Order: sequence, then C-alpha cells, then structure tokens
Amino acid sequence: MAYRETEKMRERKARARQNIIERTWECVAEGGFRSARITRIAGLAGVATGTIYRHFESREDLFAEIFRLATQREVDKVAEALNVSGNAVERLDNALRKFAQRALKGPMKAWALIAEPVDPKVEEERLVYRKAYASLFEQAIRDGIAEGCIPDQNARLASTCLVGAISESLVGPLSPTQTDIPPGQDNNEDELVNTIVCFCIRGLTGTRS
Amino acid sequence: MAYRETEKMRERKARARQNIIERTWECVAEGGFRSARITRIAGLAGVATGTIYRHFESREDLFAEIFRLATQREVDKVAEALNVSGNAVERLDNALRKFAQRALKGPMKAWALIAEPVDPKVEEERLVYRKAYASLFEQAIRDGIAEGCIPDQNARLASTCLVGAISESLVGPLSPTQTDIPPGQDNNEDELVNTIVCFCIRGLTGTRS
Repeated sequence: MAYRETEKMRERKARARQNIIERTWECVAEGGFRSARITRIAGLAGVATGTIYRHFESREDLFAEIFRLATQREVDKVAEALNVSGNAVERLDNALRKFAQRALKGPMKAWALIAEPVDPKVEEERLVYRKAYASLFEQAIRDGIAEGCIPDQNARLASTCLVGAISESLVGPLSPTQTDIPPGQDNNEDELVNTIVCFCIRGLTGTRS
Repeated sequence: MAYRETEKMRERKARARQNIIERTWECVAEGGFRSARITRIAGLAGVATGTIYRHFESREDLFAEIFRLATQREVDKVAEALNVSGNAVERLDNALRKFAQRALKGPMKAWALIAEPVDPKVEEERLVYRKAYASLFEQAIRDGIAEGCIPDQNARLASTCLVGAISESLVGPLSPTQTDIPPGQDNNEDELVNTIVCFCIRGLTGTRS
C-alpha cells in the first residue's frame, strides 16, 4: 500500500517548519546569523537537531530561506513607502527614510540582512534583493524624470547608487562592533537618517528635498 | 641537534609562498574566487596541494591573504588619486573616477573584490577595506568643508555614502552574469563612470563638479 501524506500530516509538517523558521529568526534578530546555531534553534523550537534537517537540507539552506523571508518584508515596506501621494522626490525621500529608520530600530536584524559576513549561499540572496530594492527605486526615478522633478539621468545606475549609499552608510551605525555612536539616542538617529537621505536626494537632483 | 632554519631556506620558503599567491591571484582574476580551486592553483604553481597547506592553514586563509594584498593595491591607488593638485571636490572626483575606471578595466578582478559572494572570512576583510576607503574619502571631505567647496556635513557618514554608491553601482556592470551592458564599449564605460561620479559629487555638494 503506497504511503499517502494526509492533509493533516501536511499541515503538521508546515507548522513544524514555520516554528523552526520563527525560532531561527529570533536567534538572528538577537545576535546575527553567526549566533544562530542549529543546536540552539532546535532547543528553542523544542525539536531534535535531526528534525531541522528533515525540513532544510543544510544550515545554509535554512539561513537562505530566513534571509529571503525577512528581506522580502523590507522590500515590501519600501514598495509601500514609495506608494504614497506626492511627487517622485517626496516618495523616494519617504522610502529611504523609512528604510533607514526601520534599520536603526532593529539594528541587529538589519546588520544581519545588510552587512553581516555570511555564507556565500546567503550572500547570493543578498545580491538578488539588492536588485529588488534597486528596481523599486529605478521606477520612482523614471517617474521623477517624467514629472520633471528629477533631472534626466540613467535611472537604473542612479537606483544602484541609492541602494549602495543607504546600505553602506548604515553598516557603520548598525555594526555590533561599532562603538562611537551610542545606541538609542534619538537625536543622533534623526541626524543620521537626515544626512543619509539628504545625500541620496542631492545625488539624484542636485538639491535638498 | 636543534633544527635551524637557514637564511637560504627562509628565502626559498618566501619565494614558494609568493608563487602560490601569484598563481591564486591569476585564477581569481580569471574567474573569481569560486574558480580558484586548490588543485588548480597547485597545478599552476607546480606544487602538490599539500604544499599549499604548509604555507596557508586553509583555502579561506589563502583567499583572505589574496584579498588583503589585492585590495590594498586599490586602496593605495585611491590614496594616490586623492593626492593630486586641485580642490577637494576635484581630488574626490579624480579618485572616484580612477576607482571606477580601474574596476571596469579588470571587471572580473573587481567583481571578486567588490561583490562576489565569498567565505565569511574573506567577507570580514571586505568590511575592513570598505572602512579604509571611507577613511580616505572622509579626510578629503573634511578638507573640502574647510576649503569651503563642500557644504558642512557629517564627513564620516558622507564618506560611507560614497563608498556604497560607487561599489554598488559597479556591481551590476561588473557582474559576470550581467548581460545588458556589452563589455568593452568605451563610450558606454565613459557614460557609466560619469553618471556614478556625478551622483557622488552631487550627493556631497549639491552641484556637478
């Protein structure tokens, strides 16, 4: 008699997988990918380490999945922040600002997603998502050129400049080893975000937004 | 009788090490770190694979060393390009331009150094060197603020925006999987470099250089 996976078993399997994903993300949010050891995740999830490997081929595969899920959330937030009223410069300003603010609010998460040295398999995902951010910015830049609020330029290249400028400038402030910017000082964070967004908008338009 | 390393043996060892380093760099320049397999490097160097591990603890250690040496050359070139006559904006323009031009002239090398997904040990080196570039830019930005050709701003943060914008915008054009920008078209490369440098200088100053 052939083995048949029932609906109930599939559901249980999906719930177990989801549980592993959530516990892994907790570890990453707390101490980056390096602190997310399989034994620790298994302990938090209340399963044997072998169970994790029934759901994910390897630690790298699990991490790549976590990376995809978490980064997609951030990409969606950027898309949402671009989808407000206002001209293209205002919308880009809003999206860049929100991106930086969210990153500074969850610095360890953002560090893990933006800059933590990770396995090449996860790094591949990072390159894919940097393109996803760039595509969103590119469309807004094209809108801005059409509207006349952004001077004519190579929108694609400019979009990658935005992605680079914002992520690289956050790497320092977000780094867990960074000590010269005290955490949780709001004024400091506002100034930080303003400086980064101002650089980006000036880079695009030649003027402050 | 204690074993004593003679001067001659030390020299021979240093030459053998140097040979391994040069052959590894040849592989990386040709196909990135992923194509630099130990068996291939050993073949090119004319040694047994075991010999490589007498000089370097692991493949990652060898790669980290290669990365340091190659990136230091690029950092030195940026320092040199900043050390010309002219005001700070002109010097930064020169340095950014040279960096991008050198990258586009040796696209595989630059891809390996800037963006190729690599082992975390090599990625750690990458973060160190991004700071080295940023420090050079930061000093030039401070000079520019003092000279009055760059508006007052957080020089440190702006320097990381420059590093991010220039490296991220080159990642696309340099990627070995990138197909939409045909290689070796000089006009295209000039336009590319101009666009990137223009974004950076505008980001700093609000005007074209």
